[in-house]
Amino acid sequence: MRTLRLDVAYDGTSFHGWQIQPELRTVQGVLEEALSEVLQESVRLTGAGRTDAGCHARGQVASFTSATRLPAGSIAAMLRRHLPDDLQVLASREVAAGFDARRSAQARRYAYRLLDHRDVLLERMAWHPRRALDAARLGVAVRPLEGEHDCAAFAASGGTGTTVCRVHRASWRRWESGLQLDLVANHFLYHMVRNVVGTALKVMRCADPAAAMRAILESRSRSKAGPTAPPEGLCLEQVFYPAEVS
Amino acid sequence: MRTLRLDVAYDGTSFHGWQIQPELRTVQGVLEEALSEVLQESVRLTGAGRTDAGCHARGQVASFTSATRLPAGSIAAMLRRHLPDDLQVLASREVAAGFDARRSAQARRYAYRLLDHRDVLLERMAWHPRRALDAARLGVAVRPLEGEHDCAAFAASGGTGTTVCRVHRASWRRWESGLQLDLVANHFLYHMVRNVVGTALKVMRCADPAAAMRAILESRSRSKAGPTAPPEGLCLEQVFYPAEVS
Repeated sequence: MRTLRLDVAYDGTSFHGWQIQPELRTVQGVLEEALSEVLQESVRLTGAGRTDAGCHARGQVASFTSATRLPAGSIAAMLRRHLPDDLQVLASREVAAGFDARRSAQARRYAYRLLDHRDVLLERMAWHPRRALDAARLGVAVRPLEGEHDCAAFAASGGTGTTVCRVHRASWRRWESGLQLDLVANHFLYHMVRNVVGTALKVMRCADPAAAMRAILESRSRSKAGPTAPPEGLCLEQVFYPAEVS
Repeated sequence: MRTLRLDVAYDGTSFHGWQIQPELRTVQGVLEEALSEVLQESVRLTGAGRTDAGCHARGQVASFTSATRLPAGSIAAMLRRHLPDDLQVLASREVAAGFDARRSAQARRYAYRLLDHRDVLLERMAWHPRRALDAARLGVAVRPLEGEHDCAAFAASGGTGTTVCRVHRASWRRWESGLQLDLVANHFLYHMVRNVVGTALKVMRCADPAAAMRAILESRSRSKAGPTAPPEGLCLEQVFYPAEVS
């Protein structure tokens, strides 16, 4: 058996998220079906990030094992005519045995895009929060997240496992029509990025946005944080792996 | 009767263009239907630019006359719940009698967006021509268009009326993920922007792109110009009117 890696991009608007679910159109479901046509064998994919309904990816990574003898690099091109317009496989290649898109990942980068005005062409991929965006205050607000913290305040209830995350980067930059949060961390909790965005917008109005964010983080209490920003602004941009396996 | 103006934006992907056609989903058709619900009267819209199927607008202007006594400024908000997600009325107001969105326009600005790599989130609103984009050479290529010229070389066949256009601006700038052509002119011929884009990409490879573009322009021959770029990259961004009527 060979271990294969796919680099995947999708517009999540018309998918019920990554994870396969009976009767629903999911990225994993559509992609496994296309793969089974190309490989003439059924496969089970592992995705690096289980994006939610309406969330996007430009750098999702999926892995699977297969007995296929097709050249690994040509699978992406062969998949093309089996995939819809809103799902692309950008590259395919063979990787070291044992590579697992989810467990081998060292870090992920998510972007969340905000619009500073209505824009019918960008509202599928960005959120307009209907208030003025103060770039300086938003920047200050997210800086306390960098470092290793218990991020339970930003986790949707019901999660299991550790809530400690090492956040390598939390910063805003301007994009085409607004501001974009870039969050890089070794581990993300359910709804974490969207909760950070909702909280940053909430504390933006405080006298000291950084102190307000720090207090929320240290409270470890979801009820102190802001509302969950909607899914359309979120995109999994990149997954980082050790060079020797990926 | 009052004369009213609407500022309109749409994602043209799922419309068969602006102009009303029986049995087809067009921007004019959907908007006239929504207006008739809000105003309780049937209206006929005039649009500043008759965008093609798949083309977009962020600054379309439409005018109509109506006997309504509703406050003009509130019509945009009232339309909101009668419109689909891909069609927005950004503003509504009363204008001088005789204002006509098409005939009163002094100039229009169209943008055409190119992608320098595949991007599933942006391919509804931009075109990836699958070749390297040379910003400097593309810039040089379109400069000869500025000024007053017979632009017949860039007009789809079958058009009527003058082919002389005064081009106020023809320039490229970087946008989020590639290059964007901005074309401002007093008059646009059918498919003109898309033909200019196809031609700019064609002459980009010539030893002297400006001389090649000039020769095509002066030939007044559609067959000398490049292919028509696809509709998804095109967006009507802005329409200019004399201050006293708009």
